[in-house]
Amino acid sequence: MTDCLFCKIIAGSEPSEKVLETEGFLVIKNKFPAAPVHLLVLSKEHREKPDTISGGHRGFWDGMVAAAWEAIKEAKLEGAYKLVVNGGAYSHFPHEHLHVLGGTVEEPGGRT
Amino acid sequence: MTDCLFCKIIAGSEPSEKVLETEGFLVIKNKFPAAPVHLLVLSKEHREKPDTISGGHRGFWDGMVAAAWEAIKEAKLEGAYKLVVNGGAYSHFPHEHLHVLGGTVEEPGGRT
Repeated sequence: MTDCLFCKIIAGSEPSEKVLETEGFLVIKNKFPAAPVHLLVLSKEHREKPDTISGGHRGFWDGMVAAAWEAIKEAKLEGAYKLVVNGGAYSHFPHEHLHVLGGTVEEPGGRT
Repeated sequence: MTDCLFCKIIAGSEPSEKVLETEGFLVIKNKFPAAPVHLLVLSKEHREKPDTISGGHRGFWDGMVAAAWEAIKEAKLEGAYKLVVNGGAYSHFPHEHLHVLGGTVEEPGGRT
């Protein structure tokens, strides 16, 4: 997995702005934010779709959302936050991750 | 919970366009779509944040994503899909739900 940017970030060989970590997940700031606050929750183990999305790892999404919630509290975003998971052509990195967006009055990307 | 629109939809007393259901979740078409395909995954039991988001119900997010994946396959959206969960002021219904968006080349709401 040496070509995976997120694996390098988790290993510490690629720099990142770390926010917090849980047993299974690392939360970092997105280098190219799409909102005033834009965090990424990365699974520490390299996991890819469709294994992740089809339920191949029990507890995976519970753990992902729990890490996101810790980051939401840390960033004081409880008042307004958006969690996004992209799949297929909308996804830009195969290593599974979740976006936490916030810091605006209007929803980032428009109302859903 | 008689004032909850999603509870009424689940009970069948409010009409909806049902896509599929799993043991714990119902997937319907959003009446006010923000993308060519816009589905809503609703938990059959009335759950609200922060209980859901803080991990109050073991297996909840695994089940939510598994239902979303069934709907993604059913709608033939595997090639490009976006899962969104809104919280705080970005959320418009307290009954926990997840959006499945797709049907466009560009990401709905812009690139994240």
